[in-house]
Amino acid sequence: MDVSLAIVGATGAVGALLRDVLTEQGFRPRSIKFLASAKSAGRTVAFQGRDYPVEVLSPEAFRGVQIVLSSTPAGVSREFSPIAARHGAVVVDNSSAWRMDPDCPLVVPEVNGDELARTPKGIVANPNCVAIPLTVAVHPLLGLAPLASLVVSTYQSSSGKGATGLTDFDAQSKAWAAGGPVPAPTAHRGQLAGNVLTLDWTLDANGSTEEENKVVHETRKILALPGLVVHPTCVRVPVRVGHSMAVHAEFGRPVTVADARAALAGAPGVVLMDEFRGDCPQPLTAAGTDATYVGRVRQNPETPHALDFWVVADNLRKGAATNAVQCAKELVLRGLVK
Amino acid sequence: MDVSLAIVGATGAVGALLRDVLTEQGFRPRSIKFLASAKSAGRTVAFQGRDYPVEVLSPEAFRGVQIVLSSTPAGVSREFSPIAARHGAVVVDNSSAWRMDPDCPLVVPEVNGDELARTPKGIVANPNCVAIPLTVAVHPLLGLAPLASLVVSTYQSSSGKGATGLTDFDAQSKAWAAGGPVPAPTAHRGQLAGNVLTLDWTLDANGSTEEENKVVHETRKILALPGLVVHPTCVRVPVRVGHSMAVHAEFGRPVTVADARAALAGAPGVVLMDEFRGDCPQPLTAAGTDATYVGRVRQNPETPHALDFWVVADNLRKGAATNAVQCAKELVLRGLVK
Repeated sequence: MDVSLAIVGATGAVGALLRDVLTEQGFRPRSIKFLASAKSAGRTVAFQGRDYPVEVLSPEAFRGVQIVLSSTPAGVSREFSPIAARHGAVVVDNSSAWRMDPDCPLVVPEVNGDELARTPKGIVANPNCVAIPLTVAVHPLLGLAPLASLVVSTYQSSSGKGATGLTDFDAQSKAWAAGGPVPAPTAHRGQLAGNVLTLDWTLDANGSTEEENKVVHETRKILALPGLVVHPTCVRVPVRVGHSMAVHAEFGRPVTVADARAALAGAPGVVLMDEFRGDCPQPLTAAGTDATYVGRVRQNPETPHALDFWVVADNLRKGAATNAVQCAKELVLRGLVK
Repeated sequence: MDVSLAIVGATGAVGALLRDVLTEQGFRPRSIKFLASAKSAGRTVAFQGRDYPVEVLSPEAFRGVQIVLSSTPAGVSREFSPIAARHGAVVVDNSSAWRMDPDCPLVVPEVNGDELARTPKGIVANPNCVAIPLTVAVHPLLGLAPLASLVVSTYQSSSGKGATGLTDFDAQSKAWAAGGPVPAPTAHRGQLAGNVLTLDWTLDANGSTEEENKVVHETRKILALPGLVVHPTCVRVPVRVGHSMAVHAEFGRPVTVADARAALAGAPGVVLMDEFRGDCPQPLTAAGTDATYVGRVRQNPETPHALDFWVVADNLRKGAATNAVQCAKELVLRGLVK
């Protein structure tokens, strides 16, 4: 594609995956540069048959860049994303810094790709890794009936905490499986091996975690349903990659499983699975792929206005890198880069 | 206690735990016998300082027995529990065989212990390992407002499949943590190590699993709310012991978190935890204990008629052995044995 890219946070877990996904999706930029903090200076990264030096993130580095794929802590993005935009780039930012800014679209291309056309700050926010697959799965159902509420219980993998989460979890798992003492957690907020944790995120004064608040607010923004009632419970489970969620959706009028399955079967980004053939979304099989898997679509006969279903996606791919690359591709295809 | 006991299924996972729990609870029967299938004949088991031979399960073995604690497959219970009752015993049965029989009470002592007085078949059913902690946690809230519906997502441990489940999961976990090929499952219906499974139970024609159907029907029966709407999603997670569940409860009128916490704090069998002190129910810390742990009681400000909370209990203890021993104790204390 005739576009110049920069990857910010090039040496992180998502940064590395961005390179793989760009290549898999046939996105061959005219030029690319890899930026990271001073810590990573001097490293090289391989991309599409060439080695590139990792450059230190600085305002000057954005000269001539048209699209920035940024995957850094929120504080870094708050500083550098506006600078990149001032240099004329559109930033697709994977942090939480800009997601609730009314002047930054929060985009899942299958759901609200049209929002990419309105970027007054030059920044597109890539949503949270639960909100992305949740909205991919729920959006096709909005044509059936007005959506009234969602109850969402998540089964989130260690890699949601990034590379440090996985390092911690892998060390814990080895010790736990061997029956030995499990080392104290270094990234997770408790023992995750052989356990589940709901307090693996910071709590607010109301007793919700920051992750649960992201699910509520980002789901509303992506679906453009500001009044949607969302009841999330976010839980970390001993899985390396892949976030799963049990979803209970209530609608304003009766819906049927057959209509829901028909809507999901044709929906972009969705792979609908058939439990009667023994198939069900699992993090183990979703990991390493780009789809959002939906299964176990069912209805309690007493509540024809409600559906229950099960959603799984790779949190590092569709929940982060893949969605960002899709946004970048759409920006090019829609002629939205300068 | 001046009562003669028999343990049926004495060599299984719950059977072994029944011995520990009897001793821990200070339940010293006048006499006890240990029965199992012919496979276990010749084995001995230790109990309260003595060794006992395991006897082969037969009709004659029930002579003189006042309370039977039975933990066998449902088919075995269907055959032998009525025989034990005919010999004058009250059977506390841990299988699913009698749970929905209108002539067998389904008892969680903290919730509906009074039901023990009506046992026309001489059989008391011990509920499912999800239904027990769920009803222990929900029952105290029924005094706040009429309960309208429950959405329950479970995080169930391997040991719910019994000793064979744990053997399978332990073998998988060792191989998985070492990064090697994971052996094919022998008890679970897929790889559980590093994964979560919603199809670890048999599916019905409506797309619900038998476990989900148990949660619906047993919860209604225990709470004596036959019309209660329950939406369960049952999920197996890579944990050895301890079932967790995210519960969304809707009531017929507004309730408050403060009132819910006050009701739970004083409730029998409940340990209420305070997330603002960093405490939260976890299977790792619940395992090996008899309580039902409740935490993260919270409310979405837009829905004052609803509460969300998190419940964890040891599925082998409160979810099975402990509840059965509590039933047996109550039968003696209430003078309900012949």
